[in-house]
Amino acid sequence: MQVNDILNGSLTTPLGFQGGAVSAGLKPENQLDLAILFAASGSIGAGVFTKNKILAPPVLITKEHLATSNPRAIVVNSAIANSVVGDKGLEDARTMATITADALNINPGEVLVCSTGVIGVPLPMDLIKDGINKIKLIENDHGFSQAIMTTDTRPKEFAVSIDMNGEKITVAGAAKGSGMIHPDMATMLAFLTTDARIASETLSRILSKAVDMSFNMVTVDGDSSTNDSVLMIASGQVGSELILNGQQEEDLQSAVNNLCIRLAKEIARDGEGATKLIEVRIEGANNLDEARLAARTIAASTLMKAAVFGNDPNWGRAIAALGRSGADFTENKLSLSINRIEMLKNGAPVPFVKDEAVKSMESTECEIYIHLGIGDESATAWTCDLTEEYVHINSAYTT
Amino acid sequence: MQVNDILNGSLTTPLGFQGGAVSAGLKPENQLDLAILFAASGSIGAGVFTKNKILAPPVLITKEHLATSNPRAIVVNSAIANSVVGDKGLEDARTMATITADALNINPGEVLVCSTGVIGVPLPMDLIKDGINKIKLIENDHGFSQAIMTTDTRPKEFAVSIDMNGEKITVAGAAKGSGMIHPDMATMLAFLTTDARIASETLSRILSKAVDMSFNMVTVDGDSSTNDSVLMIASGQVGSELILNGQQEEDLQSAVNNLCIRLAKEIARDGEGATKLIEVRIEGANNLDEARLAARTIAASTLMKAAVFGNDPNWGRAIAALGRSGADFTENKLSLSINRIEMLKNGAPVPFVKDEAVKSMESTECEIYIHLGIGDESATAWTCDLTEEYVHINSAYTT
Repeated sequence: MQVNDILNGSLTTPLGFQGGAVSAGLKPENQLDLAILFAASGSIGAGVFTKNKILAPPVLITKEHLATSNPRAIVVNSAIANSVVGDKGLEDARTMATITADALNINPGEVLVCSTGVIGVPLPMDLIKDGINKIKLIENDHGFSQAIMTTDTRPKEFAVSIDMNGEKITVAGAAKGSGMIHPDMATMLAFLTTDARIASETLSRILSKAVDMSFNMVTVDGDSSTNDSVLMIASGQVGSELILNGQQEEDLQSAVNNLCIRLAKEIARDGEGATKLIEVRIEGANNLDEARLAARTIAASTLMKAAVFGNDPNWGRAIAALGRSGADFTENKLSLSINRIEMLKNGAPVPFVKDEAVKSMESTECEIYIHLGIGDESATAWTCDLTEEYVHINSAYTT
Repeated sequence: MQVNDILNGSLTTPLGFQGGAVSAGLKPENQLDLAILFAASGSIGAGVFTKNKILAPPVLITKEHLATSNPRAIVVNSAIANSVVGDKGLEDARTMATITADALNINPGEVLVCSTGVIGVPLPMDLIKDGINKIKLIENDHGFSQAIMTTDTRPKEFAVSIDMNGEKITVAGAAKGSGMIHPDMATMLAFLTTDARIASETLSRILSKAVDMSFNMVTVDGDSSTNDSVLMIASGQVGSELILNGQQEEDLQSAVNNLCIRLAKEIARDGEGATKLIEVRIEGANNLDEARLAARTIAASTLMKAAVFGNDPNWGRAIAALGRSGADFTENKLSLSINRIEMLKNGAPVPFVKDEAVKSMESTECEIYIHLGIGDESATAWTCDLTEEYVHINSAYTT
């Protein structure tokens, strides 16, 4: 399947979407912090949510609304998570839906709600209410992806198109990180839009599969939040035939996978304080679950992440993390390379030129490859290096 | 049970032990890096080991020797872990036992072997051999606890005594951290000695229980190593009656718990780059396993650890970590305090004076207390704050 990039694409690139954002005063210096995505009548939705036992009120409301209505809008605020604030939290999340519904002349049940930011602080509802009413919706919006950022240093959004029976279907995605990022599910907010005409079950299936191999395989710091959500809305404005399954589903899956993996990698690359994207590739596993477990455990190792920051090919830290991961392997069949420089083969160290390895690690991307030597399954996880700046951000970031 | 501190105690304070250390040239600047603990004839031993799937050769040899003989000696080197080095590793660990046995005129099977340091680098056996032969054993040794250090900034050793039927039984312990520290089991080496006369099964039981509530409840960075070992030797030189069970076992258990918890706290306090000891206390859990899980997950949260470094009472991070821990609780019954300042009660935030909280966190110890509100079980975990210095140490520490 050919997946084509769309230059300067945004969530509103697929037909049937409008977006807009304002500075409601939750963030300092008039930064955008409140946004709406508005979808055409006839849209359907799907969502994947945090596995944290504490579900923030906006997550509860969004799950409830998705279960009972087809969504027409998403409202998001950053800076404050509206989580662990007592009974007021649920009331405020409901109010956000109601105000948004009134502004757009739709039902509150058609509004999905997301919040991200500090936990334990109540939302200033006056600011939220004023903000929502000030949002101007436009066709070519780039404000939404900026308004959802917290400690992200840059917005993350992409759009792609595929050709399906001579018709051009567009899919777009936007996401925010960049702390509290860990499977499952990678702690973050991500939003996807498409103009494809698709069955509801098919949309849910495609989203779940894509999330599993992308957002669920990225870790920044091992912490997962109470607010993680990935939401997808399909406006159904393109396509003479309803996408149900088979080749058409596979084609759309390719496009959604492509977007989700790119967004996940951008989240890792823009992890708090990060200077490098790290890709951990596991091959030769007994089964997919163990391949995923091994990749994610190594990607989450603070010692490995600190070594990569220091351009130190200290591969023993990856092997120690593999050993505690719970994945099956045979020590004397293990092979490992960093940036394609072989350092371990069949469980024994391979002499390598350290200066070359250090030099290769000075790049902004680092690949750690391990072959477990016992099976055929593989998986890839992404993370970033652990830097002094990460600690600085997270010790200075204030309640 | 009254447990009495012994000033300047060491592993050789209990009757029947000698120790010694040298600089074998594994560490720079003539630092001590190789040590022997020698126990009197008639001693018995017990051990608890890493759960990492990769067991370093010294761990394999030590397990084998403990299973087949009563130990008379422990030989330890720091700087190089003798792990993941191919077949040479097992041969080198065996040679360390043989050389030590020859020097002490005992059997190789009576020697336990430990190594700690970088993974994937073979031991320079000429240096090890010369070093072992140069070690002078003395009755009042403090070199052993220094020679086992890697990135530790100070040695950790204590000795205590208890009175048992009018006889003074002495127990001592030494441990090293200070990176790759995580349950289970807290990645480290720890050694305990006692002059008590005790049955072998009783010794193993006491050691396992003490390790579970101490070393297995400390985390520095979530990484566990391939070499972790806790070894205990009892010389049997004091006590007219063999300790089997009942009150005598409980009394000795108190002394061993006391030592292990103090050593575990010292490991956390001296974690790489640490400026503070953090104690996470969970009460009101449904069962002990969940209390332990909750305490350890919060203690392992990098976001929480970074917040404590910055004196930031960002309690939401502890609650988010609790939520992903897997422990059962009811959100609207949760209470939390930091340094006894209440911040959350029955799931709702409690207003507190932030300046007071920040001031209390400027101390070198920080207590995070959470009541889950659903049961009677409790557990405590220890960790340190996450600092820029941790990252610096682990990106600069070289292969």
